[in-house]
Amino acid sequence: MAKPLLQIALDSPTLEKALWDAKQAENSVDIIEAGTILAFGEGMKGIAVLRALHPNHIIVCDLKTTDGGAMLAKMAFEAGADWLTVSAAAHPATKAACKKVADEFNAQHPNAKVKKEIQIEIYGNWSLEDAKAWVESGITQAIYHRSRDAELAGKTWTTEDIHLMQKLSDLGIQLSITGGIIPEDIHLFKEIKNVKAFIAGRALVGEKGQETADKLRAEIDAYWE
Amino acid sequence: MAKPLLQIALDSPTLEKALWDAKQAENSVDIIEAGTILAFGEGMKGIAVLRALHPNHIIVCDLKTTDGGAMLAKMAFEAGADWLTVSAAAHPATKAACKKVADEFNAQHPNAKVKKEIQIEIYGNWSLEDAKAWVESGITQAIYHRSRDAELAGKTWTTEDIHLMQKLSDLGIQLSITGGIIPEDIHLFKEIKNVKAFIAGRALVGEKGQETADKLRAEIDAYWE
Repeated sequence: MAKPLLQIALDSPTLEKALWDAKQAENSVDIIEAGTILAFGEGMKGIAVLRALHPNHIIVCDLKTTDGGAMLAKMAFEAGADWLTVSAAAHPATKAACKKVADEFNAQHPNAKVKKEIQIEIYGNWSLEDAKAWVESGITQAIYHRSRDAELAGKTWTTEDIHLMQKLSDLGIQLSITGGIIPEDIHLFKEIKNVKAFIAGRALVGEKGQETADKLRAEIDAYWE
Repeated sequence: MAKPLLQIALDSPTLEKALWDAKQAENSVDIIEAGTILAFGEGMKGIAVLRALHPNHIIVCDLKTTDGGAMLAKMAFEAGADWLTVSAAAHPATKAACKKVADEFNAQHPNAKVKKEIQIEIYGNWSLEDAKAWVESGITQAIYHRSRDAELAGKTWTTEDIHLMQKLSDLGIQLSITGGIIPEDIHLFKEIKNVKAFIAGRALVGEKGQETADKLRAEIDAYWE
């Protein structure tokens, strides 16, 4: 498993602010995510513009898809997204529909630098049995997070969180971890083998953003080979 | 409880097609919904344009909000949505955040013809205990459906569906019912007291749309007072 990557989530409602943030962060991060707020604020135009301006970054479209999977996946991948989030609460047929669209894109573009993938956004009630079903269907990525609202409500990372992440990792799922991530949190996740990325938003923006990114990388270097 | 209303879900990825469909259906329906595909395709512009063109309809924004509730609710209500969908899988804090924004709008506009409300979009794993918590938090509407993908996978309305809807209705929740609704289905739901709306998409569009709407209304008149 490679070292965890750094991902910025752009969660401004307008493209102008999001582009500013992306520009500020482009040298610090590997992955640029159009967050749900941006995706709903600006629609697919947001994805297409980010794709055009950041050709060498992985672009994530955080739709948290829960239905209409084939159509939404097609829209997101055609607009230029590399990875698309799909809600864990979605019907298995929705997850399968998104995966199928990704597979079709990959078959048509065998030399693409980054493969189209879907990421299960873990929300609400779910079980490890569900996670096994994701793996069996060929899905290899998931996003584990404190919700922003839960974060605002004061919910922090718990040993239960870490334990669940380890179990998901052991199933072979590559995890992206998000929810108010700060450099001081990184050590909490050191026992988790398959960390694909750490995601932060406002923390990576502005003057202090580069500094925070450097601190995150230093922590990552300390715990992952 | 008033008679169930009719709602068209606009699920085109572009505004041009959605506006055509809305225009075709405007005399047949009470509620116009910017479906998830339209909302993600065009962003909040889609809501604002529908609001401007259909001032006398209830406008629903089907974001299936799962996080960032305060921001997304503010965006949707400011763009002109009357009702906003929130995923059942969202953290309770997200649901509460959306409800709070709606309540604040309502307090500021006490004479508005339609109150801002949130609708729980029932997806994934949930329990009647969850539903009781929604009611206790002041939420009065939910959407019950077969997912489009489940529908495509051949899943039809089951007695379990009807039974669950009755239980939700008995809790005082007003249900909007969706998922390939056709006039021949309406009688299935006749024992459910609190039906807020029946939702259809493509069935209400085009030449046959008005005819289908008339048939739906006739069925509704036969079973609800």
